Amino acid sequence: MRLRGRKGIRESLERQPDLVVLDGKSLKGRWAEYFGNTNPIHVEFGMGKGRFVSEQSVRNPDINYIGVDMYDELLRRAAEKARLAHGGLAEDESIPNLALALCNLEYVLDMFETGELERIYLNFSDPWPKKRHARRRLTHHEFLRKYMLILNDWGEIHFKTDSMSLFEFSLNSFADMGLRMRNISLNLHAEGLREDLVPTEYELKFVDRGMPIYRCEVLVGKLALEEHVQRLKEPQ
Amino acid sequence: MRLRGRKGIRESLERQPDLVVLDGKSLKGRWAEYFGNTNPIHVEFGMGKGRFVSEQSVRNPDINYIGVDMYDELLRRAAEKARLAHGGLAEDESIPNLALALCNLEYVLDMFETGELERIYLNFSDPWPKKRHARRRLTHHEFLRKYMLILNDWGEIHFKTDSMSLFEFSLNSFADMGLRMRNISLNLHAEGLREDLVPTEYELKFVDRGMPIYRCEVLVGKLALEEHVQRLKEPQ
Repeated sequence: MRLRGRKGIRESLERQPDLVVLDGKSLKGRWAEYFGNTNPIHVEFGMGKGRFVSEQSVRNPDINYIGVDMYDELLRRAAEKARLAHGGLAEDESIPNLALALCNLEYVLDMFETGELERIYLNFSDPWPKKRHARRRLTHHEFLRKYMLILNDWGEIHFKTDSMSLFEFSLNSFADMGLRMRNISLNLHAEGLREDLVPTEYELKFVDRGMPIYRCEVLVGKLALEEHVQRLKEPQ
Repeated sequence: MRLRGRKGIRESLERQPDLVVLDGKSLKGRWAEYFGNTNPIHVEFGMGKGRFVSEQSVRNPDINYIGVDMYDELLRRAAEKARLAHGGLAEDESIPNLALALCNLEYVLDMFETGELERIYLNFSDPWPKKRHARRRLTHHEFLRKYMLILNDWGEIHFKTDSMSLFEFSLNSFADMGLRMRNISLNLHAEGLREDLVPTEYELKFVDRGMPIYRCEVLVGKLALEEHVQRLKEPQ
């Protein structure tokens, strides 16, 4: 039964080649070609059911989005969600600025070329609370080194979590790597839901319960950093 | 009555010139001379009743401590506490490595020379939660600029608070000033009271109630930053 279930998922994904990328490695260095333009590429690592990346792709047609996850079942559900978000598209219709890709982030360098991305979103990644699993946290310095490679000169990481311990770990990880942070928030929706920042499914549940959401932006690219510093110098 | 009370405080402080400095400005650039040695000088801004600075001065005889506050009544109580912490000294006995100074931090540059300090402690400063009072927060960038002047090449700021909003503000303030952070903690005593970090009176109450304490260290001096970066490169 389970096998048939999974086989069904794979078949469903294979029916949607215009939205779902099963072999992301084949597009390394060729994502601009895939989207057919040179718009900035924003990627969500660990998109889950894809609410965030779908909504972003609706709001910002001039940005190309890639949602990445390692579970095919999540990819299937994200594809459904994306078609709904875009007004109820059929399975054979594509979304010009969105791709959903199957990938284990251990191999992220096989999927993206140096400087190919402009932004990485990390939303509610697994906190891996045990010390011996620290290397699996998506903000571990080994992951950060890879992100620094594939981000371009305007590159930023936008990080959001409900896990205090993961946030603490991540702030130290960013700081230790010499990465400059901006807009650090220890209770993102303290003054009401921030409509400008698309919430994930998970996030909405947590905010409902009054639990704090932690967030920060990390400036990776040289130009992003320069612009930020320039802005701080301007009179307010 | 009130006047007489305050007059009594001032008289008590004046009886202890070896411990209490009423005119800190007169020692600007001459603190090493005051202590009679060239040991590093660590200052706590807003020492309150002085438990922290007293205990530090007992633990570390090779560091000179200055506790600063703007309220003479707090200075009086801190002086009592300091004498107790050092084994019950009489009012005419001095503590070689401790001074308690009366100063409004607005005028901190009148009290310390460029590079005169090695460390600044900010413990549980007033959070000034209203936006229009932001400039009074001791981690506002105008204060940070002053700290950056009076700290030396090994200079660090050690910051601790129970106020989530002040911590959030401060992290952004440090980041915006381009200051590198280290040992960021969103729940300092999560794994039991950290005996290595002297708690303040205030802190002990909060930890008792299970409330989180936020803390971070900020690297200001060039050599402090270089050493930190060097250590991060060493294999762990």
